Amino acid sequence: MRLRRDSRAPEYLAQDERVILEPKNLKGKWKEYFGNENPIHVEFGCGKGGFITELALRNPHINYIAVERAETVVYKACKKANRNEEIPHNMRFLFWDVRECREVFELGEIERIYLNFSDPWPKKRHANRRLTDRSFLEMYEAILTSKGEVHFKTDNKGLFAYSIEEFSACNWLMKNVTLDLHNSGMEDNIMTEYEKKFSEMGFTINRLEALKPQAHV
Amino acid sequence: MRLRRDSRAPEYLAQDERVILEPKNLKGKWKEYFGNENPIHVEFGCGKGGFITELALRNPHINYIAVERAETVVYKACKKANRNEEIPHNMRFLFWDVRECREVFELGEIERIYLNFSDPWPKKRHANRRLTDRSFLEMYEAILTSKGEVHFKTDNKGLFAYSIEEFSACNWLMKNVTLDLHNSGMEDNIMTEYEKKFSEMGFTINRLEALKPQAHV
Ligand SMILES: C[S@@+](CC[C@H](N)C(=O)[O-])C[C@H]1O[C@@H](n2cnc3c(N)ncnc32)[C@H](O)[C@@H]1O
Ligand SMILES: C[S@@+](CC[C@H](N)C(=O)[O-])C[C@H]1O[C@@H](n2cnc3c(N)ncnc32)[C@H](O)[C@@H]1O
Repeated sequence: MRLRRDSRAPEYLAQDERVILEPKNLKGKWKEYFGNENPIHVEFGCGKGGFITELALRNPHINYIAVERAETVVYKACKKANRNEEIPHNMRFLFWDVRECREVFELGEIERIYLNFSDPWPKKRHANRRLTDRSFLEMYEAILTSKGEVHFKTDNKGLFAYSIEEFSACNWLMKNVTLDLHNSGMEDNIMTEYEKKFSEMGFTINRLEALKPQAHV
Repeated sequence: MRLRRDSRAPEYLAQDERVILEPKNLKGKWKEYFGNENPIHVEFGCGKGGFITELALRNPHINYIAVERAETVVYKACKKANRNEEIPHNMRFLFWDVRECREVFELGEIERIYLNFSDPWPKKRHANRRLTDRSFLEMYEAILTSKGEVHFKTDNKGLFAYSIEEFSACNWLMKNVTLDLHNSGMEDNIMTEYEKKFSEMGFTINRLEALKPQAHV
């Protein structure tokens, strides 16, 4: 998502209490910070944040953290969330790079990771930048609880195929796989900004859930 | 593939020496039967057999067995193979049901299994008839050599998604996955009869290779 840098962004982010500016301080202390024992779900690369904001409104007993590395995008996402009638109390924004997620999340601190329409990086030499590359899956495995899952959707066939290979190579269990989400019977799907755009253009949407590798008994 | 039953089929199959009528007698003895130590590759549900016939012509040092349970279809496949200029010496037809493959193949006797455009059985209550259902994967695991693989392609999105779940649940390693085979750069693809038909209709073709679960060291 390429946007002109908006010079008002830093100031806005600094004054919005739902934007965490020093997330490293909260590593291992997220439950304490939220003030309850509710599970924590994150979205990595949330873009404009419509998906996670809606999830947070629907599920008040889950805490949500939206992670996005493009400052202007976080800014737009915050402004959008603040325009909601009910502002979800149970969500926060991190202006942060997923590559450094181990610096802000402790081992086993997260229950679920959403990846929606992650950048496909179609060139082979950029494969390790894809958010489902095995180097990322290893980090996700670390920060997830023992029954933690990644929920992933994308229109991009190349990225989806690559992700299946990576999850398989890393021994994640894939379930609820579909190559046509909008005709799959899934009832509580929440469309992301990219999902609306690409499905209107006629692309089918792929989705899967992957359970992190289970410790052998 | 629904075809009117052709009353000439039984007689034709009986006289064609490349059709094995009593395959149970060859269980565990296929190498002996072929008279060499070449690896054995099978196609389950070969239909009219264009794919495996072409493979056999290209790879004289591999032995091929085409398995098909519809008598009239085997008949058509044989007639078609016999019309070839060079008739591949390294392939045989079995008029047999894959559900009973353990009765004709010994443990570790097969190096590779091809599944092409297998019947999708779209209704959930018929899922266990799909040739990638875990009940089949268990049989395949048994008859395959330790490094044996299944190579699978289909246009059917539902069947492909289901197959990913089943391979994952059974700990097969999926590789070379593509959701758009004809734009994937695979150079030696051989189109099957169904593949020609469905790709001409505009469907994209999905493909994957799955390595059987490896014994833990
Ligand atoms: C294609 S957009 C999809 C946005 C949104 N999930 C949707 O479906 O509408 C991908 C987003 O991921 C963000 N992103 C990509 N790599 C990232 C990383 N390493 N860390 C954080 N955000 C990242 C990009 O800045 C971009 O906003
Ligand atoms: C949809 S056709 C595809 C044929 C061919 N592979 C192609 O791609 O053109 C599926 C074939 O599998 C055969 N078949 C289905 N289930 C089978 C089974 N259990 N044993 C053997 N053959 C089977 C059917 O009779 C049919 O000819």
